[in-house]
Amino acid sequence: MEKAHTKANAAIIVIGNEILSGRTQDINVSFLSKWLNEIGIRVEEVRIIEDKEKSIVDCIKELKNKFKYVFTTGGIGPTHDDITSKSVAKAFNLKYDFHKEAYDILEKYYTSEKFSEGRKKMAKIPQGASLIYNPSSGAPGFIVENIFCLPGVPSILKSMVEGLKNKIAGGKKILSQTISVETVESEIANSLEDVQNRFKNVEIGSYPFFRLGKIGVSIVIRSTEKNQIDDCYKQIVSFLKNKKIKIVEK
Amino acid sequence: MEKAHTKANAAIIVIGNEILSGRTQDINVSFLSKWLNEIGIRVEEVRIIEDKEKSIVDCIKELKNKFKYVFTTGGIGPTHDDITSKSVAKAFNLKYDFHKEAYDILEKYYTSEKFSEGRKKMAKIPQGASLIYNPSSGAPGFIVENIFCLPGVPSILKSMVEGLKNKIAGGKKILSQTISVETVESEIANSLEDVQNRFKNVEIGSYPFFRLGKIGVSIVIRSTEKNQIDDCYKQIVSFLKNKKIKIVEK
Repeated sequence: MEKAHTKANAAIIVIGNEILSGRTQDINVSFLSKWLNEIGIRVEEVRIIEDKEKSIVDCIKELKNKFKYVFTTGGIGPTHDDITSKSVAKAFNLKYDFHKEAYDILEKYYTSEKFSEGRKKMAKIPQGASLIYNPSSGAPGFIVENIFCLPGVPSILKSMVEGLKNKIAGGKKILSQTISVETVESEIANSLEDVQNRFKNVEIGSYPFFRLGKIGVSIVIRSTEKNQIDDCYKQIVSFLKNKKIKIVEK
Repeated sequence: MEKAHTKANAAIIVIGNEILSGRTQDINVSFLSKWLNEIGIRVEEVRIIEDKEKSIVDCIKELKNKFKYVFTTGGIGPTHDDITSKSVAKAFNLKYDFHKEAYDILEKYYTSEKFSEGRKKMAKIPQGASLIYNPSSGAPGFIVENIFCLPGVPSILKSMVEGLKNKIAGGKKILSQTISVETVESEIANSLEDVQNRFKNVEIGSYPFFRLGKIGVSIVIRSTEKNQIDDCYKQIVSFLKNKKIKIVEK
């Protein structure tokens, strides 16, 4: 079996009761996955877990060995329910204390008068962690080994990831091509399976849609190899023509 | 430790490469979580995993023992990438074959001419499974022990869950109350922690927001006990008044 850390793969851990309760709709997973695809990293698992130390510690310990990179979102703010930093420190047996560089950044960001106890908490991160700078609101994220800890607020998270590019060794960009057709899945299932069997390095997905009163299927071809996508695409278009199925978008 | 199956808790497994790639934004988790909260079931973990047999089998085997209920979404359609039914059968060592009732439903739904091989696949489910009826598009979901398998298309999933109510033993409804204030988290962090420490059966979350050019924090109080929420709420409103923090919504 290929070792996990030789593959350019990743997992995302979403930390937050507000996502689990359904109160807040997560949009970070989709953003991070697309951003990682662009730099050739494939997200292979996502976990959404509670703001509980044991849940976070166990999850980090398990996933850090299974994936090359692990991203966490949420739980690095100043309130009592923000326990990601402390939990990551525990998972790695590191001291959880004021981090000099983070403290200096936050002290500079706030005037000394506004640098309250709550804000100081955001400078407490696992010993030896390197920082992920935050151009939006000062408080940094951090990296411990292969764990990248980001905030939960989508606009702040987005502003921080660009600074990570040189810290992640990506792979070949994952390319995709979509063909949307006016049909139902069962009409194309067998032919699509035949094509999938001929292209082992290509991932073909089939997704029904209902929009503007029309029923259809989006066929998505994904691979790091453009020529494989092109060949696969031609075979799909060919069987669609034979079946007289209308292509609405490609 | 309380045994998992004595708690009214649940996990959701989202099966689908299209969610992991970021191409499709999942909205089923938020819908299912809110629906389950209403009947007193708390979602404690979500996993988003690949359309791979091993991933699905391993995940089912692990979570079926950890949670009272496990819901899967996706992968029960007619195409080659729909492998949930087969994988659930494998996880429980059950035969994966045509299910008489499901076959009859689908045969009736389609005219016999339109009941193609692809569609017949949707009648193959684990032996002994009971069905979850589908008022939208015929093809049923199914239940094996504590695993409830639902489709990935949100509109179809929504149409199917109402039929589940009598199959789930819920708990007390989980109530919540939100107070939105014009402040930053660090201003209220200590006071909020004090309140949290006084109410062990209440879960207080703090979520910063940025909307309409305003910065604020939503404080969310959750519990099954209305009187606890009310008491907790009063204490929060009281410290907000002392700090002269404006409440914008409650």
